Amino acid sequence: MIDAVLKQIDANREASVAGLKELLKIPSVSTKPEHKDDLRRCAAWIADKLNAMGLKAQVKATGGHPAVVAKNEHKAGRPTILFYGHYDVQPPEPMDKWLTPPFEPTIRDGAIYARGAVDDKGQVWAHLQAIAAWQNNGGLPVNLTLLIEGEEEIGSDNLERFVRDNRDFLKADVALISDTNQYARGLPAITYGLRGLVYNEVFITGADHDTHSGLYGGAIPNPANILCTLLGSLHDADQKVTVPGFYDDVIPLSQAEREAWAKLPFDEAQFLHELKLGGPMGEKGYTAIERSWARPTCDINGLTSGYQGHGAKTIIPSTASAKVSMRLVPNQDPVKIVESFERMLRERCPKGVKIEFARHGLSAPVLVSREGKAMQLATEAVHDGFGKTPTLIRSGGSIPVVGLIKSTLGIDTLLVGFGLPDDRVHSPNEKFDLDALHAGTRTAAALYGKLLHMKS
Amino acid sequence: MIDAVLKQIDANREASVAGLKELLKIPSVSTKPEHKDDLRRCAAWIADKLNAMGLKAQVKATGGHPAVVAKNEHKAGRPTILFYGHYDVQPPEPMDKWLTPPFEPTIRDGAIYARGAVDDKGQVWAHLQAIAAWQNNGGLPVNLTLLIEGEEEIGSDNLERFVRDNRDFLKADVALISDTNQYARGLPAITYGLRGLVYNEVFITGADHDTHSGLYGGAIPNPANILCTLLGSLHDADQKVTVPGFYDDVIPLSQAEREAWAKLPFDEAQFLHELKLGGPMGEKGYTAIERSWARPTCDINGLTSGYQGHGAKTIIPSTASAKVSMRLVPNQDPVKIVESFERMLRERCPKGVKIEFARHGLSAPVLVSREGKAMQLATEAVHDGFGKTPTLIRSGGSIPVVGLIKSTLGIDTLLVGFGLPDDRVHSPNEKFDLDALHAGTRTAAALYGKLLHMKS
Repeated sequence: MIDAVLKQIDANREASVAGLKELLKIPSVSTKPEHKDDLRRCAAWIADKLNAMGLKAQVKATGGHPAVVAKNEHKAGRPTILFYGHYDVQPPEPMDKWLTPPFEPTIRDGAIYARGAVDDKGQVWAHLQAIAAWQNNGGLPVNLTLLIEGEEEIGSDNLERFVRDNRDFLKADVALISDTNQYARGLPAITYGLRGLVYNEVFITGADHDTHSGLYGGAIPNPANILCTLLGSLHDADQKVTVPGFYDDVIPLSQAEREAWAKLPFDEAQFLHELKLGGPMGEKGYTAIERSWARPTCDINGLTSGYQGHGAKTIIPSTASAKVSMRLVPNQDPVKIVESFERMLRERCPKGVKIEFARHGLSAPVLVSREGKAMQLATEAVHDGFGKTPTLIRSGGSIPVVGLIKSTLGIDTLLVGFGLPDDRVHSPNEKFDLDALHAGTRTAAALYGKLLHMKS
Repeated sequence: MIDAVLKQIDANREASVAGLKELLKIPSVSTKPEHKDDLRRCAAWIADKLNAMGLKAQVKATGGHPAVVAKNEHKAGRPTILFYGHYDVQPPEPMDKWLTPPFEPTIRDGAIYARGAVDDKGQVWAHLQAIAAWQNNGGLPVNLTLLIEGEEEIGSDNLERFVRDNRDFLKADVALISDTNQYARGLPAITYGLRGLVYNEVFITGADHDTHSGLYGGAIPNPANILCTLLGSLHDADQKVTVPGFYDDVIPLSQAEREAWAKLPFDEAQFLHELKLGGPMGEKGYTAIERSWARPTCDINGLTSGYQGHGAKTIIPSTASAKVSMRLVPNQDPVKIVESFERMLRERCPKGVKIEFARHGLSAPVLVSREGKAMQLATEAVHDGFGKTPTLIRSGGSIPVVGLIKSTLGIDTLLVGFGLPDDRVHSPNEKFDLDALHAGTRTAAALYGKLLHMKS
């Protein structure tokens, strides 16, 4: 049957791209309240597609943006797969950097350009197309449950409660996510490690209004000066993070992993050149791959204070704020880390000003087993889809739901992703290669076929 | 004759406020290119008023916004006074903090509220009303030249050339500026010291686009992290500025000044309370008055990087920038200081990113003599205007033209200002007390009468 399924996928290549375009046109930016209705519309669009394939799909309310859930007809004796994806996207800003508008998907040089092209709409779409092909050829051979949420890009704050409340509905033998990358063009991959995330916002408030920097400068505390002093002390000269206890629970990289990664094709000079960077920077004693896959970081994601217009304005700003996130590695505890971070800044903050925090999401780091039947079948499926055996890699990104699935449902997750490292995820001109979309759709179809045998 | 002049000013109190409202309605924000025509309109409005008083006024082009110049009929044997003021204003932002709109002047609790109310339109207006009263009563008793520019709030970049090019036209025996404050309500003052200013903008550029903080974090330099590290090192634990050579040329405060200032009424707890601050902060070893009047500072006026919207966006920003200004005291050299500042940051900046600077204005610190006939006459004039003998004070603000007048025309400047410390200069809800406007108009009229005798 898989041959017929793959044949249909090959025949449907162009129609598949047209469908993805429709999905990418919906500006489902979860962080912005003004897009609330677009999120709802996007969820309904996906549920309609799944219902049309003969699955039973619903848009379910959460504490925030809704989630789409769906099932095919579950039959006794077959393994159950939980597919997870997300339909929300990052904000498109800065708008002036897009060659074509972020919500007008455009084909260029064999790729589709749009916000969400690869993260994660395009990869979800590959699965929907694989499911459709199976449904047209006798039906999916496994029990499949889908959970496609709308808050991944804002920390999946309401997902934990949703998964707990729907534990029975979501019960499965293995979870499957396509929200990661191939290692490189022509080198498909399966990901076995993800970093966790703590996302914090720091607010410093001084005088209750902006004041004249001549008349007041020197006499009163300046929140922007204070913010820079606090944030400027988060790294030492070796680019180690200075948050107390930050490295206490970090599992050191194994020698085997370091050796395996050193053999991966990676040209750091070329990597930096493509980003127009003058040189590398990062934690001393580790390679770039090690630093981004398996070492924790602390990065400022945004800074705001005072006058940001053209030219000069001579003020002591009333407020200064920063968005600061930390990527965590096994076994760092997000709660312990965010508490230590806030305590450190609070203690160092001069008494003249007020310091406050907001937390925008916590997620645990993940390591999944590289052994076992499911991983073996996934490896074969990627080979069927891409024509090559995948490499096992880690990723520096975070997918909060993987830890949640483990802790709530007690199962591991297969991270079989189709993106490329140059897809500009979260950046202007995000893209998804059409070859990858096609090979990914084939891989997804093969996976659903193979996973039937995961218990044998 | 002065009695008739003052009598007319007293009688005209209400009409004067109506005229000032017209002037304050013009949004002459010099830093914003979109207000260019408003600047031109404001200059023409002032020139019209002066011509209507029988002076000969012109709007003169400069390299930037135009300047208004005017003269009465100069007669031999009379001293010549150069009055300087500015008609441009600071940007009104943040708009949501204004109780009434910044360019719809409103009377409340005995004060007029608008951007520019006291800085400097209201004070310029006091002089125009004083001139009008003299012109209606036999004419001004001195030779008067007026120079009212439109770029004071952006560093007076084109003024130096303008003053040099018009040196003969502007030649005078003494200069007069009303762009400073009384010490407090009921304590009028003459200012004999001003701080200088260096206003710099720092730009750090990393990768050529914002990148995903999971996939890239740790592997590449983060411009926002780097900016905070650089700016966070500008002060030591004693809040001394760490720019090399920063204090080398600073003239130490004299014991006499420290003692005199210690006797001025100043309740620091009340001062901090009014600003809603939890405590003081500033250079160790100096009082708040000393720090703001006579010690140099380094203050961040604005910070911009990455995502500034609602919630979370997980990016390594491509760029980060800051506006940083330093207030200087005698005898610091602005050029030497800005060069040392840029050199320090350039040397400390990691090689992976690009660092660039823009300069938005340099001005020298000022100390004028507290001795001499002109200062004595000004003291008498303030007494005639306010009914009290003024205190001699310094100010932490900068008026670039004072140094320029000294170096180009070779004369000192009398700084006789009418503002109050709580006028919220450069802040939302800027105001000018109507009593101060009136007493200031009387003072200006008395000054023009008294300065006739400055050479005798």
